Amino acid sequence: MIVIMRDGAAVKEISGVIRSVESAGGQAHVLNSGQRVVIGVNGPGIETTSKQLGALAGVREVVTSPPPFQLASRLFNPDDTVIKVGKVAIGGGTFTIIAGPCSIESEEQLMKTAEAVKTGGGDMLRGGAFKPRTSPYAFQGLGLKGLKLLAQAGQAFDIPVVTEVLDTRDVSWVSEYTDVIQIGARNMQNFSLLKEVGKTNKPILLKRGMLSTIEEWLNCAEYILNGGNTHVILCERGIRTFETYTRNTLDISAVPAAKELSHLPVIVDPSHATGKISLIGPTSLASVAAGANGLTVEVHCNPKEALSDKDQALTPAQFSDLSIKVRALYKFMSTQADNANDQP
Amino acid sequence: MIVIMRDGAAVKEISGVIRSVESAGGQAHVLNSGQRVVIGVNGPGIETTSKQLGALAGVREVVTSPPPFQLASRLFNPDDTVIKVGKVAIGGGTFTIIAGPCSIESEEQLMKTAEAVKTGGGDMLRGGAFKPRTSPYAFQGLGLKGLKLLAQAGQAFDIPVVTEVLDTRDVSWVSEYTDVIQIGARNMQNFSLLKEVGKTNKPILLKRGMLSTIEEWLNCAEYILNGGNTHVILCERGIRTFETYTRNTLDISAVPAAKELSHLPVIVDPSHATGKISLIGPTSLASVAAGANGLTVEVHCNPKEALSDKDQALTPAQFSDLSIKVRALYKFMSTQADNANDQP
Amino acid sequence: MIVIMRDGAAVKEISGVIRSVESAGGQAHVLNSGQRVVIGVNGPGIETTSKQLGALAGVREVVTSPPPFQLASRLFNPDDTVIKVGKVAIGGGTFTIIAGPCSIESEEQLMKTAEAVKTGGGDMLRGGAFKPRTSPYAFQGLGLKGLKLLAQAGQAFDIPVVTEVLDTRDVSWVSEYTDVIQIGARNMQNFSLLKEVGKTNKPILLKRGMLSTIEEWLNCAEYILNGGNTHVILCERGIRTFETYTRNTLDISAVPAAKELSHLPVIVDPSHATGKISLIGPTSLASVAAGANGLTVEVHCNPKEALSDKDQALTPAQFSDLSIKVRALYKFMSTQADNANDQP
Amino acid sequence: MIVIMRDGAAVKEISGVIRSVESAGGQAHVLNSGQRVVIGVNGPGIETTSKQLGALAGVREVVTSPPPFQLASRLFNPDDTVIKVGKVAIGGGTFTIIAGPCSIESEEQLMKTAEAVKTGGGDMLRGGAFKPRTSPYAFQGLGLKGLKLLAQAGQAFDIPVVTEVLDTRDVSWVSEYTDVIQIGARNMQNFSLLKEVGKTNKPILLKRGMLSTIEEWLNCAEYILNGGNTHVILCERGIRTFETYTRNTLDISAVPAAKELSHLPVIVDPSHATGKISLIGPTSLASVAAGANGLTVEVHCNPKEALSDKDQALTPAQFSDLSIKVRALYKFMSTQADNANDQP
Repeated sequence: MIVIMRDGAAVKEISGVIRSVESAGGQAHVLNSGQRVVIGVNGPGIETTSKQLGALAGVREVVTSPPPFQLASRLFNPDDTVIKVGKVAIGGGTFTIIAGPCSIESEEQLMKTAEAVKTGGGDMLRGGAFKPRTSPYAFQGLGLKGLKLLAQAGQAFDIPVVTEVLDTRDVSWVSEYTDVIQIGARNMQNFSLLKEVGKTNKPILLKRGMLSTIEEWLNCAEYILNGGNTHVILCERGIRTFETYTRNTLDISAVPAAKELSHLPVIVDPSHATGKISLIGPTSLASVAAGANGLTVEVHCNPKEALSDKDQALTPAQFSDLSIKVRALYKFMSTQADNANDQP
Repeated sequence: MIVIMRDGAAVKEISGVIRSVESAGGQAHVLNSGQRVVIGVNGPGIETTSKQLGALAGVREVVTSPPPFQLASRLFNPDDTVIKVGKVAIGGGTFTIIAGPCSIESEEQLMKTAEAVKTGGGDMLRGGAFKPRTSPYAFQGLGLKGLKLLAQAGQAFDIPVVTEVLDTRDVSWVSEYTDVIQIGARNMQNFSLLKEVGKTNKPILLKRGMLSTIEEWLNCAEYILNGGNTHVILCERGIRTFETYTRNTLDISAVPAAKELSHLPVIVDPSHATGKISLIGPTSLASVAAGANGLTVEVHCNPKEALSDKDQALTPAQFSDLSIKVRALYKFMSTQADNANDQP
Repeated sequence: MIVIMRDGAAVKEISGVIRSVESAGGQAHVLNSGQRVVIGVNGPGIETTSKQLGALAGVREVVTSPPPFQLASRLFNPDDTVIKVGKVAIGGGTFTIIAGPCSIESEEQLMKTAEAVKTGGGDMLRGGAFKPRTSPYAFQGLGLKGLKLLAQAGQAFDIPVVTEVLDTRDVSWVSEYTDVIQIGARNMQNFSLLKEVGKTNKPILLKRGMLSTIEEWLNCAEYILNGGNTHVILCERGIRTFETYTRNTLDISAVPAAKELSHLPVIVDPSHATGKISLIGPTSLASVAAGANGLTVEVHCNPKEALSDKDQALTPAQFSDLSIKVRALYKFMSTQADNANDQP
Repeated sequence: MIVIMRDGAAVKEISGVIRSVESAGGQAHVLNSGQRVVIGVNGPGIETTSKQLGALAGVREVVTSPPPFQLASRLFNPDDTVIKVGKVAIGGGTFTIIAGPCSIESEEQLMKTAEAVKTGGGDMLRGGAFKPRTSPYAFQGLGLKGLKLLAQAGQAFDIPVVTEVLDTRDVSWVSEYTDVIQIGARNMQNFSLLKEVGKTNKPILLKRGMLSTIEEWLNCAEYILNGGNTHVILCERGIRTFETYTRNTLDISAVPAAKELSHLPVIVDPSHATGKISLIGPTSLASVAAGANGLTVEVHCNPKEALSDKDQALTPAQFSDLSIKVRALYKFMSTQADNANDQP
């Protein structure tokens, strides 16, 4: 249930609604966009209070059937959410490029790659210290040692860093080393992990599960938002289909679909989606054109020697080239959007 | 097996190869691009003649393990195939927009829509006279009457027309009324129909089956090419997955994938791929950015009254707006490609 | 719309309904099960006549919202349809085993295999004369020569035969050589072909498309039934999924699902569903246990030499063994069903 | 790498191999079946020691390219693994029925349902205390309170219990309350959780992920086995496909496939696979016929009032009826297997 307050509602009117909700055993999430205040309400049986809430001072409207992902929905927040990570912004009028190796392998590898990311036009550095590998015998990541290297590289090149967490027990201490926490596709519906990162104040990069519908994905964002963490970035990374030419199937429609359903920023991971170097360029450009707010791509200082995902990592030169093309296209698209605002 | 002739090979050397192939019981398909001559060779047991062919005068190389879709492959023809339909070209340095109603319903509906297509920036007019409908009780199309209307509209607005054929028995007479024959997704592996259209000289718009791999799709193109008809346009129209928010899942990677595997032009059908008006714009732009050679979209003079696919048909105004945006983006992409030719 | 007549309705009452339907521009399909008469009604706008039809003499009930596949539905016919092919029955209280080679290759191959089928416990002989092959360069079948061999084998071993038709133009003449016409998975939604076989009086074996929902499959059966041919056998043969260990994924639930939705008999093709010899036994037994009315399996006198599907063809000994196990299980299941008739 | 010892190899010969492996930095997993000893060996670069290991006393053979899931493979253990849970055995010559509610809701609900499970023929009681729900606002389970009720019900009815764990932090203390730990489909690739349960000595019920291949599933079992816990039960529960008539698509072929690839027992969950009461009976029988070692089904004392999965929970009467049918069929199948041991 969503309670929309009148423009200019008084603070005590807002408090009145919150008190009413809590005394009925529900929870209230307040969104104050400056212009308007909206209150997301949930809890068992809370629907029965809708009339009562509607009659309170300062309430304009009570929406009784929002989407199941009410806090993530456009109904709750018609404006695009912008997430700040240091000097970087994700969402709104910018395009954010996250890049780096699949796995952190060594200081040399990470520093060289970080330099390539920074000089090649990247906004953030990604790198895995805990790797979710299909086989227990495959390289599982450097763990703490990797995290320290990542934090070091981030400082050295003045670039925020992103890394994946796999275990609820790791959330709080990993947060010390990273600017953004990534929830991987295989853990998208690891609800314990979602609840745990929902308690932090870190931006969360939530990858879409390879088996998940758009609605399930937004419900997973809702787990995080409902925990009190409003900094969620959605990431489309390809879904599993019968097609075997590509590693996964990039669901390009999911970009505009998620953006019409939700106010959260949406980025695309063309590396995992395609698994093929030759397809990363065209699908990255397609993502920009479809309205994505950014990309996350795998870059390695020496892809042939990579310990994981060697077939989909860009070289520094390929990354720099991609970055230039993508930014040129984004600039063009922005100009077009400024000229005319009506969508077909 | 593909026989590549030396540059400047003499006509009698080419004939020599063909004669050798035919006397061994095989079939030869000659591609003369002006610069080089390539001969696609197939037939039972023909592989055993590779050495003999390699020794013939004028032969540069014999490729013994081409892809199964050898005539459709880039190996057979490294250059983009351009297909001419009257004054319209598909492939190469142009972007082609095909538009029109799902079904031809009446003279008034078709003429109004054709006018909207022509004035809104469309290059070709599409319209179904034979409709492959899930239920036998749904509107099955106007048949011959519809074809006559289509041909009439094409003449009235000086615009080439495209229509689908469902039955081998209809191929030759339907060809009299249309400029391009469409093979629909449900008939992609109707091999009898592929063989039949392979005997004509009409351009064929081959839609990808909704559960077909890219390789199966190219093999279906091969059926047509092997029949002697070299005018095949590939059309990605979404594949069937578990996702239900969209009608199908647009496989945007299939565009650059098909173009790296094949020399045939590739267009996209965002209407069937998404089934949602709000997603047609973003996915059309994504298709341009991914390298598509064109689009085919559903437009109706009055979508609310459409007898089929009413939820995915654009109004004339929406179409015109889409057309402008798509062409602006295509122009931008072309400029970029001219500036730098190395792909990441 | 379905009109259910009163028990013992007079012939002239039935005719009265038919006349009313036809004068309103609709079509009437009469099902007389001996005990009750039901009339399937369809045509554009025919729903508006429901009250008028309900008031006619002898009418018990008018069902205005049947499933889209009304003639195939359990609502139209609560009793299991039994299809007779010579001395063989499919559906009801028997279990029918159809077996034979993927392709008819030669007289020797077919006669040897036919003998193995007959002596190994098969009820019908299958064999392809027109083969829908992924590549145009693969063996396409012997055509007419194959059909003649099939008819000859059927006579020699006194066993009905089944063969696939790919082309509307072949339906009438192929009917002369076969007892059952098969519509393959790739042609399930070849609506022209469905309409054409709907005009014949031959039993039709309708394979489920690898991309098709159960509802779409039943709608394709409806095309045939609506054409006037009531002899339709449904065949589940595996659907396409992301799993690659098996050729397709046998949708075992589709057997009881189709049987609860429809009165038509349902058989299973474990050869195409699994593509692996070792899995044919277990999935055949599973099919019996799930309530299938029969099986169609690939058998070859010498699988290693088969021109198509060599990895999934049973040897004569394997077939005979399978046949014994399957029949023993079917007998057991029938005894159980006789003992207790309430389903969990 | 798998080292197979000679029959009757001496203890010091076995120790010699282990010592060699460990001194090369590898890990050794010993399987002593009484008749033969097999040692699974892994670790980075361990392949280079294969010749050296092959030359050690008592070694019969070194298999250098086992499947990636070597400890789970038939190569490692040709005999069926039997897992003991109190007096209940899973695998080998028995058929095990696990039943109970989706969620533990109250003492009354659980005790009533447990009684129905026990008297209706169930071998083990299942019930969820931590529920992985799509929406954060759906009932999330009773947690500790639920676990206590489950343990109490298990004792009251002298029946082992199964419950799902979602969080690595809960594994050790939840183990105190349950006989078997379930890893749900959404957590199949939660590798941290797999590693954690791999450290326990509890039997693990590992559900197949809804978009996981059979090979990925076995690799997840390998994570647990590699942790030292050899008590893994595989559970097929349906995969996600395009079909919407059923909740998921039961992959019946996965049962014999997993059993030919692995020595671990395989059970089926027809409740989640189909999501429809009417299909649970036929698919349960199909599972028995396909060779499953057991079933896990949802039963509720009053399905209409269930807080989750109400549409797929059997009533006590339906469960009892299913149980009788399933056991009768299993008995029949066992008799058949005794009579003849050659598989088609």
